[in-house]
Formats: sequence, C-alpha cells, structure tokens
Amino acid sequence: MPEYKAPLRDMRFLIDHVFDFHSNYAALGATDASADMVSAILEEGAKFCENVLSPLNRSGDEEGCHFDNGVVTTPAGFKQAFAQYVEGGWHGLAADPAYGGQGLPSSLGLVISEMVASSNTSWGMYPGLTHGAMSAIHAHGTDEQKQTYLRKLTAGQWTGTMCLTEAHCGTDLGIIKTRAVPQADGSYAISGSKIFISAGEHDMSDNIVHLVLAKLPDAPAGTKGISLFIVPKFLPDAVGEAGERNGVSCGSIEQKMGIKASATCVLNFDGAKGFLIGEPNKGLNCMFTMMNHARLGTGMQGLCLGEASFQGAIKYANERLQMRALTGPKAPDKAADPIIVHPDVRRMLLTMKAFNEGNRALTYFTAQLLDVAHLSADQTARQDAEDLLAFLTPICKAFMTDTGLEVTNLGMQVFGGHGFIREWGMEQLVRDCRIAPIYEGTNGIQALDLLGRKVLGSQGKLLRGFTKIVHRFCAANAEHPQLASYVAQLNGLNQQWGELTTRVGMAAMKNPDEVGAASVDYLMYSGYIILGYLWLRMALVAQARLEAGGGDADFCKAKLATSEFYFKRLLPRIAAHRSAIEAGSDCLMQLPAELFAL
Amino acid sequence: MPEYKAPLRDMRFLIDHVFDFHSNYAALGATDASADMVSAILEEGAKFCENVLSPLNRSGDEEGCHFDNGVVTTPAGFKQAFAQYVEGGWHGLAADPAYGGQGLPSSLGLVISEMVASSNTSWGMYPGLTHGAMSAIHAHGTDEQKQTYLRKLTAGQWTGTMCLTEAHCGTDLGIIKTRAVPQADGSYAISGSKIFISAGEHDMSDNIVHLVLAKLPDAPAGTKGISLFIVPKFLPDAVGEAGERNGVSCGSIEQKMGIKASATCVLNFDGAKGFLIGEPNKGLNCMFTMMNHARLGTGMQGLCLGEASFQGAIKYANERLQMRALTGPKAPDKAADPIIVHPDVRRMLLTMKAFNEGNRALTYFTAQLLDVAHLSADQTARQDAEDLLAFLTPICKAFMTDTGLEVTNLGMQVFGGHGFIREWGMEQLVRDCRIAPIYEGTNGIQALDLLGRKVLGSQGKLLRGFTKIVHRFCAANAEHPQLASYVAQLNGLNQQWGELTTRVGMAAMKNPDEVGAASVDYLMYSGYIILGYLWLRMALVAQARLEAGGGDADFCKAKLATSEFYFKRLLPRIAAHRSAIEAGSDCLMQLPAELFAL
Repeated sequence: MPEYKAPLRDMRFLIDHVFDFHSNYAALGATDASADMVSAILEEGAKFCENVLSPLNRSGDEEGCHFDNGVVTTPAGFKQAFAQYVEGGWHGLAADPAYGGQGLPSSLGLVISEMVASSNTSWGMYPGLTHGAMSAIHAHGTDEQKQTYLRKLTAGQWTGTMCLTEAHCGTDLGIIKTRAVPQADGSYAISGSKIFISAGEHDMSDNIVHLVLAKLPDAPAGTKGISLFIVPKFLPDAVGEAGERNGVSCGSIEQKMGIKASATCVLNFDGAKGFLIGEPNKGLNCMFTMMNHARLGTGMQGLCLGEASFQGAIKYANERLQMRALTGPKAPDKAADPIIVHPDVRRMLLTMKAFNEGNRALTYFTAQLLDVAHLSADQTARQDAEDLLAFLTPICKAFMTDTGLEVTNLGMQVFGGHGFIREWGMEQLVRDCRIAPIYEGTNGIQALDLLGRKVLGSQGKLLRGFTKIVHRFCAANAEHPQLASYVAQLNGLNQQWGELTTRVGMAAMKNPDEVGAASVDYLMYSGYIILGYLWLRMALVAQARLEAGGGDADFCKAKLATSEFYFKRLLPRIAAHRSAIEAGSDCLMQLPAELFAL
Repeated sequence: MPEYKAPLRDMRFLIDHVFDFHSNYAALGATDASADMVSAILEEGAKFCENVLSPLNRSGDEEGCHFDNGVVTTPAGFKQAFAQYVEGGWHGLAADPAYGGQGLPSSLGLVISEMVASSNTSWGMYPGLTHGAMSAIHAHGTDEQKQTYLRKLTAGQWTGTMCLTEAHCGTDLGIIKTRAVPQADGSYAISGSKIFISAGEHDMSDNIVHLVLAKLPDAPAGTKGISLFIVPKFLPDAVGEAGERNGVSCGSIEQKMGIKASATCVLNFDGAKGFLIGEPNKGLNCMFTMMNHARLGTGMQGLCLGEASFQGAIKYANERLQMRALTGPKAPDKAADPIIVHPDVRRMLLTMKAFNEGNRALTYFTAQLLDVAHLSADQTARQDAEDLLAFLTPICKAFMTDTGLEVTNLGMQVFGGHGFIREWGMEQLVRDCRIAPIYEGTNGIQALDLLGRKVLGSQGKLLRGFTKIVHRFCAANAEHPQLASYVAQLNGLNQQWGELTTRVGMAAMKNPDEVGAASVDYLMYSGYIILGYLWLRMALVAQARLEAGGGDADFCKAKLATSEFYFKRLLPRIAAHRSAIEAGSDCLMQLPAELFAL
C-alpha cells in the first residue's frame, strides 16, 4: 500500500496563491482562520492522516467489517482512530460554535476531508456521513433537535447516517415504501427497510442518528410526498444521553467490491420512534442539503484515491528497472532504466497528475464558493455563489469520480502484474474508487441534474454564470506572453460550450429524450473545459512566480509542464464528447428494447 | 451472477454469413468441418459451457484456490469440470491428429474458447495455458518431445504453463536470472524462481509441463541469450507416464484482485531437470509462438467478460423499474418504467453491444486468418495471413481488453449500487477483466509492438496489408444505397490512418521517443477504424439479408441500428486519439523525472 503523504505543497499553492483563501477569509470575517492557523491545521491534519489513518487502510480492507446478530464491528484500530480524530478537534473543525464546533470555514473542513479520504476512504465514510447529517439538522432542525442531536454529533459522541435507498428504489425515491405513522406524543412510528446505508451500524460511537426518508399516511404520490425523520438508534434520555434502544436494527451488511471497511447496512425499522425534521412532505428538500454535501464528498473520493494511486505509481516508476529508454540508456550502471524514462509510462503518470491537480483545483474553487455561500454578508454574492455551486456540484461528483477511476486504473497499470496483486495496495484503490461513480446519485443522474435541471432548467443562466467568469479571464489574459495560445484555445471552447448548449436545448424542446441522450457526454465535455480554465489559472500563477523568482521554481516548472500536457493531450478529448452529443437521441432510441439481445 | 447463454445467433451470423467459414474450410481442405459438424459443435459447446462451467464461476471466485505446503487445490467442481471437458472432446478439438487431436480448424477451437472464457474465465486459464504450451511444443519440439509431451497434453492428462516472469522482470525478459546448466545426459539443471505462473500448480491433471525461459552459462546478454526448456513437474518414466518428482515446487499463490480461481503461482526451480526445446539462445522465438496464441486468448477475455456483463445488464435493464421515461410513461401499469427506456441506459447498453459484437467480429476475422496460415497450400496466401496476424495480434490483445474493461464497468454501472455488491456477480466481471490489459504483455507493450515493430518496422507494409483491404471494400461499396455515407466516413479515416502513420514515422526517425509517445493512442485509433470496417461488413450483410427477407429481420435490424450507433457515437472517439498522437513527445519528456512529485 502506498504510504500517504499529504501533498501540502500543492495544497498551499492553491490556498495561498491561486485562490488566496486568506483574503477571502478576511473579507468574510472569518478571522479565526489566520494564515498561521491555516498552516498549522494543514500540518497537523497531515500528521494525523499520515500516521493514524493511512496505516489502517490496507488492514481495514483485508479485515473488513464483521456482522454478528445485528452487531457490526469495524476493523481493528478504526474505533481508536475515530476517538483520536475527535480528540484532535478534527471532527468539529468547521461546525457551528453554537453547538460545540470550532466554526472554521467550510473550505478548511474540506481540505481536512481530502486528507482523510486520501489516506483511508473507508474510514472517512463514518465522519463523512456524520457531517452530512449535521448539515441537514443544522439547516432544517428545530432548536430542540439541534440541542439534542447536533451537540452530540459535533462532539463525535454520536454519528449520523442518511437512509434513502430501499431494495426496489435508489434513484427513484418517489416510490419508497417506508411509512411514518403519527403518534399521540407528536413522534412518528417508522416502519420499513432501507438498504445500502453507509455507517448504518458500527462500534465507533455511543449512538447513531439516522435521517430517514418515509411517507406519511396521507402523503401525495411521488417525490412530493416524502418526509424526513430523525430516528436515533438509542432514544435520548432525560439528560440527553443515549437511552432506550429504538426499534431499528441492522439486518446484514453487504459483501462488496471495495470500501470493505465501510459498513454498508440493511436497516430494518420496526415501528421505530422518529421525529419529523423540516416540513411534512418536504423531506427531499431537506435531504438535498445533505446530498449536496455528500456529492462534493463523493467527488473528492475520485481526487483522493487518485492522489493515493499517483503517490504509489510515481515511487514505483522511479524504482522499477525495466528496459532501456528508446533514446539510449539513462541508468547505464543498472541492469535497466527506471520505467519513468518510457514515454508511455510518462503519459500515464502525467494523466494522473493532471487530473489530480486539476480536480484538486476544482475542489478548492468550489470550497471557496461554499465559504461565500455560508459566510458572506452580501446577499448577491451569496446567491451567485449558490448558483455556481448548484452548477458545479454534479460536475464535481461525476467528473472527478470518472477521472478518478481512470487515474486509479492507470496507477495500477504502471505497476504491471504487481498492480493486480493485493499486497501492493494499488488494486484496492481501484476497487474503493469504483463505487464513487455510482453512489450519491449515479453519474448518469448527475448528468441529468446538470443538463436538465441546472443548465436547461435555468434557461442557461447557471451555465452563463460560469462561462462569464471564463470569458472575463480569457479577455484579461489574451495577450499573455507565454500562455496566449492556451487562452485562445480555452476562449474558443468556452464559446462553443454555449452554442452547443443552445443547440441541445432547442432539440430538447422538441424531444425530451435529447437531454438524456446528451447528458453524460455533456457533463464530461463541461468538466474538461472547467479543468482547462483551472489549469490555466494555475499556469498563470506558476509563470508569474517563476519570473518573480519565488523560490519554488521547480514546482512552478512542473505546473507549467503539466498544464501544457493537459491542453495538448487531455483537453482534446472533448471532440469525442461533442460528437457524441451532436449524434442526438435517434441512434439510442430507435432500437426496440426487445431487440437488444436476440 | 448472470447466467451465461452462448450468443449462438451472433456467432452463426459471423460464421455463416459475414465470414463464410464453410467455403474457407472447403478451400483449405478442412473437410471434417462440415456445416453440420460446425453447427453441432456450437450447440454442444454451448451446453457444456452453460451447464457445467457457468455455474462454477461465482463459487470459484468466492472460494478461490487453496495453498497448503506446496499443494494447490482448485475450487470445488473445477477438477471434475476439466475431466468432463476432456471427455467431451473439447480439449483436443483443434489439436494435431498425429498426437491424438481431432484436427478441426483453429477457428473452431477459438469459438469454443470464447464460450469457455465467457462462462468462466478463471477456469479457462487451465486449458488455455495448456493449448499455448501445445502450440510451442508442436512448432519447436523434437519428435520425441512431441511423442512424450504433446500426446499427454492433447489428451488432457497433463497440463502446461509458460514460465517467463521473475520478480525483477516481466516485460524485460533480457534480464532474467534463471539459469540452465548442461548435464552429462544431455538435459539441463534449471535453477531460479518464476512468479505469476498461471496454472503453475493445481490438482486438475496428473502432471504439469512447464515451459521455462532460462539462460545457458555462456549465453549472450539480453534477449538474444534466452533459451526455452521443458521442465515437467513429474519426469516421464520408462512408459511415458508421470514418474519421479522433479525439482520444481510451488512456493505460494498470489492474492489477487480477480481471476481468483486461477492459481497464480510462485515456482521455485531447484536444479530441476529440463530439456531444451528449439535452439539454444532462441528461446524467445519459441516462446512467441506461445505468446501470440496467448495474446489472442487474452484479447478474447475482453470480449468474453464483456459478453457476460452485457447478458447481466440487458436482463436487469428490462426488469429494474425506476423513474418514468422523459417522453411519458412506458409501463403505466407499473410503479415505474424499466430503465431501458432511459436514453443514458441505452447509451451504456449499446456501447456494450457495439464493442462486444465488433470485438467478436475481430476475433472471428482473425480466427479465419489463423486457419489460412495453418492450412493453406498456397504459400503467398499463408504469408499474407501471417502478416495480417502479426499486425492484428497486438490490436486484438490491447483494444479488446481495454474496451472489454470499459464494457464490464458499464455493465456494473447499469446495476447502480447493486453492481458493487458481490452477489450480483457484475463486479466480479470487472475484477476478472482488469488483469487482461496487463498480462501477456501490457497494453503499452502491445502498442509499442504494433507501432514500432510491426508498422514502422515493416516500413508500413503490414499496415498497408490491412488498409488495402479496407480500401477495396470501400471502393466496392461506395454507391451502396443505404450505407454509402458510412462507407465514405470509413474510407476517409482509412486514408487518414496512412497519412498519420507516415507523419509519426517521419518524426520517429528524428526522435525514437515519438514512437512511445504515440503508441497507445495509435493502437486505439487503429482499433476503432478496424472495428468500423468490421461493423460495416456486418451492416452490409444485415441490410442484404433484410431485403432478401431471410427470416432474421429483427436480428438484422438490431445489427444495422448498432452499426449506426457505432459510427455516430463510438468511432468519433478517434479524434481524441489523433490529437494525442499529434501532440508528440515533447509534452511527455520535458519534465525531469524528479519534478513529477514535489
């Protein structure tokens, strides 16, 4: 298993220079997040993830979770690591001080989450789901619910889940069968069965707070009749501690391809006591607070597993001796050259590097928007940030996980046959990553959300919110002495993006299937342009720092070379996506379903 | 686990109509392979694979192989299935009658191998490696070696392996350390350790015949100093049966991501008695006979696992109810529509279908060339077939496994969260497929073989051998009433292919790194054009049969629709590969190795 080292240099390049988190924190009044504080958090967070979580990654995969008559035990060391994480103040870092959190900006919380998921994705699911539950309760809970649940969740004494999926429905939540019957005391009796519940049962906390989608007896059909309930595993007693056991139990855990140390549970609710959160029949709205959080987190798993894979691959490529360079021996004193001399190995490594660093830039760009949306006093700025977040969230989720899967597969390929062997740890990263394009809304669903709901649903407004930024950036840098040709390339694509969107929108007005036919390729097409914009922003900063002689010349040279690689070898992939979008829906829909297999 | 059903209809479409195996068999004098015989073989082969091998696929993955002090036990049922396979005459189907085989054409052997690997890839490794060993001994062994080993291997009493890789080298066989010291009796004492030996030790046969690469004491350095040896696990006794135990033992088996029922062994040779096969220091040539066989077989694993995945996905897509069609309900009597109504699900299914059927056509096209190369009395025809095989083999291996991996991942994606759960069997197909782009020469190595050795190494001759076929085909069908536009698209690409190759060749003369920089994209680019040619051949036949009213109208309509999908949505991917090829080597090579990670 590659040993994780937090890529602090790249993180700081983004935080300090590309996005200047510090000025933004100052403008937003987040004065606790001083430059020194941020630096200390990065270093201490790195230590915790490198020393505590990373060593548990492979053992967690090998051991997996244990299920015994409703009791789930996590792999050795997981529970202790969670206690250390809470004790170190990592869990409540970005949580509301009113409920015991430290109130640091969301962006810092995300940076820590990146380190956590890079060192141990399965372990990161437990706090990750809890953070999602916290955000939903914070946004939609009553004061009493916040006092009762949010404090305990923030303190890491209790953990949280989101219970949506049932055996017959995952995407289509409108047809859930779990029922909530009002009780005389104002609570609800929840009955039904949920599947695929991450962290649904485990031994890491005193109590588990389930957020459960269910239908009231008189609920309208479909998604407009879903309500959200808090269903604690143990009901809070008079003093707010975990008391009587509630009617929820874990029926089994799944045997999965990856993230084996994350307990994926069947949860049976048998008249369990639940408490309505938010308004009746508006549960899906409440759940979306949580899902948007989760979708960013899931997108980051693509980045994180890609980073871990790159760290393994780059080490191996420098150490493994095999064949001579085509241009003549590079290590004549050795039996063969290290494989990094071979152009195709470099193609794989640079593809990994370009996606990882591009996806990290996308994550931090999005994280900064989260800060503005959460903290800005300016209503317009908040709304603009919300709009951009709405646009970017499905792209973060799907583009980063699809490219993350490509990256982890490349990392494994660099290892040759050894990549397929468990002890090297590279194949675990592929298996762990494979769920990310599926859960939290499949990437197909993200693409429909992007093109149908966000872009066309806003008559292009949400897209224009982003293309305007790119347009301004290109205009401002059109004459850049070194990078003007890339600026022109990006500017052309940015324009094409708008035109292509208009064409798809026109076609969709005549035939709604055009949206579904174009959506996945449209999302990937958009993702490549967005990463192009971010790579060029990084290149501009790197070029400026190189000229200023900032002391990080090597780092800046690598940024510029990787940016060039991205523009020359990865960005051109959009041609294939554009062709697929333009192919339209006929060639998908004309074949009757019964003729697919004969 | 999807239940495998041999796609006999598609197989027969290719065998009977597209490639007309029957006329070819007649022309080659393979009179035993009558149309009735072929038909019976297809049906009986299908029954065996569906009823015996397919049910052992998931249990084999769950159980895996057992290692106990040098003894390897295969999963329950594997040994019995092998006995049935041998008894049914499947093992010796295409083997030389002089050593007990049935002497049917190689193409029929490949069709059966397809069914075997589709129903149980891991199991198929045991006979697959044996067939490779048989072909090497047949081509390079002495009469005595053939009598001793080939008879037993053909009878399925003994099985075979190929022992190339050592811990420090896989691709770079020139630096192997295994040594062969000549003995007074004309044999050699073989010492060294080999890893990743498929079927290296198991309980399915009485004896295992290892073909081992090793170096003679006076051997020149590098690949020109490698010799090939037969090293049986048990030395043949006076009557040719397995006798005394030889000095070879299994040190351990690997814990792997997939093909868990295939024993991947560390083999230790401790002065084992070996017998030179072929000439001293010419071992790599001999091994290539085996490797070319194995490369086709590995390429087929991409097709086979893709087919299995498609069979699971199409069933699920028709049964799983989720959301309504964007154009309005299609199954109003049900809670939701089957997901096959959604354009993006169709995109995934059609991508799977187009690659599988295209890859099958490529396999059968290649199989027919094998027949000509093996059986033709015409020296020119044999040489032409050999040249085409040399050109196509790396493409079959790499293109079919890369697209097969895409297909199995799509099949998993169609299942949503259920695809990640072991019991559905879809994730096993991804894990089993993931080794195919790695072993038998990584796909990167295949690409270097194609572009460097085959295409540029022949000054373009081997490429022209194929583009000429496409050119003639396009010229003959340029006025086709329905398909002319696709013919024109293919013809244009075929021309571009030659021009692009010339440009890469010119660049490579100045800088050898240009080959490695272009190779993987060049291979994929080539593969897409070749599949375009084959899809158009299928479409032409389907169109003709449809007009003739041949009774398979539905099947032909599906072929035409899938061909259209291929041309509109998959073939345009070559634009991205072309851009990557044209990007050249600078953007890969300029970054010093030590700056990749900072």
